[in-house]
Amino acid sequence: VTARNLDILVVGGGSFGTAVASILSQADRRVALWVRRDDLAREVNHAHTNSRYLPGVALPPLLRATTDLQGSVASAPVILLAVPSATFRQTARALGEHARGDQVLVHGTKGIELGTYKRMSEVLFEETCVLKVGVVSGPNLAKELVRGSPAGCVVASRYDEVVESIQRLFQGSTLRTYGVRDVVGTEIGGSFKNIIALAAGVVDGLGMGDNARSLLVTRGLGEMARWGVAQGADALTFGGLAGIGDLVATCSSPLSRNHQFGTRLARGERPEEIKATMVEVAEGVTTTKAVHEQAQGQGVDLPIVRTVHRMLYQGLPVLEARDELLAVPVGREFPRGSPRRGDA
Amino acid sequence: VTARNLDILVVGGGSFGTAVASILSQADRRVALWVRRDDLAREVNHAHTNSRYLPGVALPPLLRATTDLQGSVASAPVILLAVPSATFRQTARALGEHARGDQVLVHGTKGIELGTYKRMSEVLFEETCVLKVGVVSGPNLAKELVRGSPAGCVVASRYDEVVESIQRLFQGSTLRTYGVRDVVGTEIGGSFKNIIALAAGVVDGLGMGDNARSLLVTRGLGEMARWGVAQGADALTFGGLAGIGDLVATCSSPLSRNHQFGTRLARGERPEEIKATMVEVAEGVTTTKAVHEQAQGQGVDLPIVRTVHRMLYQGLPVLEARDELLAVPVGREFPRGSPRRGDA
Repeated sequence: VTARNLDILVVGGGSFGTAVASILSQADRRVALWVRRDDLAREVNHAHTNSRYLPGVALPPLLRATTDLQGSVASAPVILLAVPSATFRQTARALGEHARGDQVLVHGTKGIELGTYKRMSEVLFEETCVLKVGVVSGPNLAKELVRGSPAGCVVASRYDEVVESIQRLFQGSTLRTYGVRDVVGTEIGGSFKNIIALAAGVVDGLGMGDNARSLLVTRGLGEMARWGVAQGADALTFGGLAGIGDLVATCSSPLSRNHQFGTRLARGERPEEIKATMVEVAEGVTTTKAVHEQAQGQGVDLPIVRTVHRMLYQGLPVLEARDELLAVPVGREFPRGSPRRGDA
Repeated sequence: VTARNLDILVVGGGSFGTAVASILSQADRRVALWVRRDDLAREVNHAHTNSRYLPGVALPPLLRATTDLQGSVASAPVILLAVPSATFRQTARALGEHARGDQVLVHGTKGIELGTYKRMSEVLFEETCVLKVGVVSGPNLAKELVRGSPAGCVVASRYDEVVESIQRLFQGSTLRTYGVRDVVGTEIGGSFKNIIALAAGVVDGLGMGDNARSLLVTRGLGEMARWGVAQGADALTFGGLAGIGDLVATCSSPLSRNHQFGTRLARGERPEEIKATMVEVAEGVTTTKAVHEQAQGQGVDLPIVRTVHRMLYQGLPVLEARDELLAVPVGREFPRGSPRRGDA
């Protein structure tokens, strides 16, 4: 792999990275998938499967995996980083050792760094010399992507070149890409929605019905937009694929890990038990902690985040959490002044 | 029923009217349910069921049905009209014979009048002397409401008194009410979402997955907001319960009639066959026609509405409709200027 010229390098062999590499390979792009583990690289290259993260899926035979970061970074004009937020900085740093200023570097990680509360694009700026940075986000459940179901996503960057190169790469694939400029809003949408998905999983796990879940999703969108705008995002972003689009998919799909996490909470399992038995991390668990702490520091009131935080970290019983999730007024759901006038 | 003083009269014994009357009765309000048919009135009063529209549901024993419109209108300070759009004007006219200017009159009908393209509140102004008019809308699937699952709705009126009286009535019930001023947006949200739900039913019926449905819902929200703002609505309304909230519930629930209609279209049934076998009308079918014609008259381009219209009225095959529904750019999804810059 390292010898030939690539169109794109995908860094991270989890379900999302593998799915994106797979659909790009099927669209005849020259794509390499960097994975950490030798045995996974061999499995992808010889059995054409990724049985841990995408069980039962046949990957395209031309998709090549590699563990050679230096070689594959050197031969790729575009790099997509798709690793969990917990290992994001460390992976970005390793990548930064080899990256060049003429490369395009986007990520698809929907989380926030614990402790620093930094967005992933901020980490990329800190750990690499690349300026042409962007983010890919939207309703993109990996298990659906990899089987070729159509989907749309947003690619956000301050650089037109980033947007255009990603759009060119995905042209003719099953994933449609829409360009936006609002990096902050796109990253906040992708991470915040996992908190709401956890709450939606609880509501669904308790059998509250579609009316109640829609009430929660609507309130969640308002809270997301209010928080995002306070961080400098454009409110309109949250009405698009990276906001409500991703929120709807994640809150209504049993394929979502964060939704599953909430459903299991509703069944009485404890957060540590659930974490210990999940194959891939539910980003919402750490994002809840990060956003809650950050909001407290800024003096911003986020009722849903606060309830989910109490449920995950302070032992709040799910039945009490349910009442809080459905009972808080939506009177202030819009960030820019509202036609609403109180609630009853 | 006619002799005693009522808190509210609900006009219309379909699933929504019956469900709302039921939860108000359970919250100890004095409520009468006006129905057209004698046999249904007797069934509600004696068997405490409405087996045609809410099969298997036990209604509260204190809920009284009546066929006496004059007497029940005379004794109710608040009237909620919940009949299909096709019979709305005729019912409003009959009600208008007895209504007084001091009464509050709201409706819960999510449709548009064919031919005139009028919203239901406009019809109320034309057919009654009541000025204190409003609309109730939101994610309120009747089968969930009637079994006591929590839900939220919007009550919209230019009159504070209307909002406050409805909020007072529902206080302590399982349906939370949020007041807004934007009547136009609230009515457009409730009717337009049925068009998108039809399309979502097709996408679901074809097994396209949650990513694709979210793409459609996001585009649908944008089209709804663009159309609504062109009619004088406040864009923010579409981010609330009457917009995205109702859209999410209707597009993701098998309980929605409009979603069911789309699913059956995807299975190859013809619109006339489906219509002939549905117990209650799917408002989206006529709303599609009304909005499509109105948009053509105004020169507004609504791609999803156009595709659903061709599918319902011009024989467009569902597989072609699917491609159109998922392929159209979202670049212009926001009405008030957008950070997006094209699509690929």
